[in-house]
Amino acid sequence: MKQYIQQNKERFFEELFSLLRIPSISAKAENKPDMQRCASRLAQLLLEAGADEAAVYPSKGNPVVFGQKIIDPAAKTVLVYGHYDVQPPEPLDKWLTDPFEPVIHDDAIWCRGANDDKGQLFMHIKAFEFMVRTGRLHHNVKFIFEGEEEIGSPSLPDWMREHKDLLKADICLVSDTTMISEKVPSINCGMRGLSYLEVKVTGPNKDLHSGHYGGAVANPITVLCEMIAQLHDADQRVAVPGFYDKVVELSKEDRELLAKAPFDLDEYKQFLGIDEVRGEKGYTTMERTGIRPCLDVCGIWGGYTGEGAKTVLPSEAHAKISMRLVPNQLSREITPLFRKYFESIAPKDVHVEVKECEGGDGFLIPISSDAYKAASRAIAEVYGIEPVPSRGGGSIAVLAEMQQILGIDPLLMGFGLERDTIHSPNESYLLKQLFGGMESIALFYQYY
Amino acid sequence: MKQYIQQNKERFFEELFSLLRIPSISAKAENKPDMQRCASRLAQLLLEAGADEAAVYPSKGNPVVFGQKIIDPAAKTVLVYGHYDVQPPEPLDKWLTDPFEPVIHDDAIWCRGANDDKGQLFMHIKAFEFMVRTGRLHHNVKFIFEGEEEIGSPSLPDWMREHKDLLKADICLVSDTTMISEKVPSINCGMRGLSYLEVKVTGPNKDLHSGHYGGAVANPITVLCEMIAQLHDADQRVAVPGFYDKVVELSKEDRELLAKAPFDLDEYKQFLGIDEVRGEKGYTTMERTGIRPCLDVCGIWGGYTGEGAKTVLPSEAHAKISMRLVPNQLSREITPLFRKYFESIAPKDVHVEVKECEGGDGFLIPISSDAYKAASRAIAEVYGIEPVPSRGGGSIAVLAEMQQILGIDPLLMGFGLERDTIHSPNESYLLKQLFGGMESIALFYQYY
Repeated sequence: MKQYIQQNKERFFEELFSLLRIPSISAKAENKPDMQRCASRLAQLLLEAGADEAAVYPSKGNPVVFGQKIIDPAAKTVLVYGHYDVQPPEPLDKWLTDPFEPVIHDDAIWCRGANDDKGQLFMHIKAFEFMVRTGRLHHNVKFIFEGEEEIGSPSLPDWMREHKDLLKADICLVSDTTMISEKVPSINCGMRGLSYLEVKVTGPNKDLHSGHYGGAVANPITVLCEMIAQLHDADQRVAVPGFYDKVVELSKEDRELLAKAPFDLDEYKQFLGIDEVRGEKGYTTMERTGIRPCLDVCGIWGGYTGEGAKTVLPSEAHAKISMRLVPNQLSREITPLFRKYFESIAPKDVHVEVKECEGGDGFLIPISSDAYKAASRAIAEVYGIEPVPSRGGGSIAVLAEMQQILGIDPLLMGFGLERDTIHSPNESYLLKQLFGGMESIALFYQYY
Repeated sequence: MKQYIQQNKERFFEELFSLLRIPSISAKAENKPDMQRCASRLAQLLLEAGADEAAVYPSKGNPVVFGQKIIDPAAKTVLVYGHYDVQPPEPLDKWLTDPFEPVIHDDAIWCRGANDDKGQLFMHIKAFEFMVRTGRLHHNVKFIFEGEEEIGSPSLPDWMREHKDLLKADICLVSDTTMISEKVPSINCGMRGLSYLEVKVTGPNKDLHSGHYGGAVANPITVLCEMIAQLHDADQRVAVPGFYDKVVELSKEDRELLAKAPFDLDEYKQFLGIDEVRGEKGYTTMERTGIRPCLDVCGIWGGYTGEGAKTVLPSEAHAKISMRLVPNQLSREITPLFRKYFESIAPKDVHVEVKECEGGDGFLIPISSDAYKAASRAIAEVYGIEPVPSRGGGSIAVLAEMQQILGIDPLLMGFGLERDTIHSPNESYLLKQLFGGMESIALFYQYY
């Protein structure tokens, strides 16, 4: 595959860039037409790569791209999952280049989606192309690319239910996660679930002059802050009653195994520019993001946020709150617990609304499967070192649903690195990882 | 004056609307050219109304308009203060009409600045015009209109120091406050001072994926909320140490006198759409806004505030905080107390910045002066009922400075009403108050 990459590199860039230039932001209604454009371009790329068929399917939300090549009904079938939607690029002023105009410098591609997930799904299309064109393919391969992963995949579960036969497969291959580092390849064997909510606190029915009313009326910003301050206790545990009830505590042995993954706390703090880490008492940093649930405020707004001084006592304050969940914590149970608690701590002089935006469960992947072993062997060959099993802190909500609906286990062969700053300004993807990923995937097919 | 208003009403509207259409927002740099346009238009209106001279003067910031008519150097001189700058119109989606296109309906003018302060300063120009054209004027009259009141008048004190002789006067007449109600006219005999600050909490040096880092790193939004939650104690007193040290407690008699002003708590709550009021323990609602200091969060922002779900652990969180101060609490003393306290409650894993935006002191006006008595008599004649002395919760920072620099006491003949919702969307000014104000001002000249 190495040689094939060298021979086709420029064409690969052109093809990937054509995807990256489309601002397929699923969170924004204004980008609807871009979702269709991006899906069509993907179907075209699948056909060019050698799929027998590939098409854009409508769903309740953004379109789903499905394509396949059936070699032999009796052969093993690999289902490749990816998503073509991206996170909003904001804050725009922090980008050093145009978020939707890919550039290559410092051995990486810089663009929104360069890694998450256009860059990573592209590796699969090209590894497939290589297998087809060199006559190496001996599996059936199916591709499913959705356009709503970043908003919690609201439409894909129903679409999967309606297309169960089409999607039959032995394993679901996913590249949408990270490795521990370039030098420490790893395979994700579990992800966190997610409950994402938007809350609104309303005080007076209109914005007021803070001089005329200040001191006499509940200020919804202050109230919201006081409520958010009650979401964690002094040990940095989430204060929502019942939140930890179903969390499975790992055994001493499992924790020791996880602790073997190399991790340098000083490097970590330096990378983030912080003096101290903060998290749930009694757990290490790796455990806090890997095996423990958490709650974060992802956004807050209210009152005057423009330039200069405006003296206003606002009518409303808002926040976006995400809870990362671990296996056995079900989003459909945690979300109502949060709602109940949040409403219970609201003072009587304000009105509180809690709106669910997105939810999904965490999952675990057994490391004893044939697919895991094949992936491990492939990565070891490319990176020259055996990958360690790790736990990702992020969420791909739909994969837990896929397990339930289709009965297919995911295999997370992710080639991202923390330095790629996905979801943030200046997202990038190292060429070394892009090409290393392609090679590893091609070898996976060989060993699976 | 009533008849004069009837005869000239349409021209009055045209003239006032020409001011209102200029978006003279002092908080925004992009509106600089509008400040000059608005100042020029005001100077023109003063000349047309009968001033001997009127001109736009440069200052360190936005231009100052000064005009005068000297009848007799031995006569009493009235200095009229007003401001032509306005608050930002945001949130724009709450306006029912264009914020800078005045419309008349329901017996009121609706526009940003309709009351604060273009509508109110316009009453003075027209009352002056009436006095001049009907040969009634027997005072010298000077006008000073500034363009930075809404941002704390940073340039006017220096300008006043440089033009002390020009500004010599016996009293400073100001219409930039409210009456208790249309049926209960009042004269403001004290205002609160202001310390306005912007705070910033920085956690990690970049926005992070909340899945990969959530639970392991201090979230600056959560930290800011936890800090804001520590700004008030359980009795709703401001928790900044030393905040109340210089606050003068009113005597039982003074409190009883203030309590005589009619106030209906149920009506108040109904107007605001709230079930309960909230404020410093041991004081009434009127006292909380009139004679007690307070602290409000006027704005907060951080992380993703757009549509949909973005899972980010942001690098920064911000808030705008205003403290309303009562006489003897000096802004230059309170601001450092706040800064010290805010920095002291910051956890070590974040970085905190406190920036002063604006500051000014409160003041009191004696109700025994000739000017107060003349104003009281004038208002009583127009409204058919004697005005009560009241305490305004707002701040006109520069008037305390004027007392100190020029030795001139302000007299606050304000004709605004709470229903005008100044500083908020859909600001308005009742025609009845606009014209009642003109009549009262004309009579003030007669009785002073």
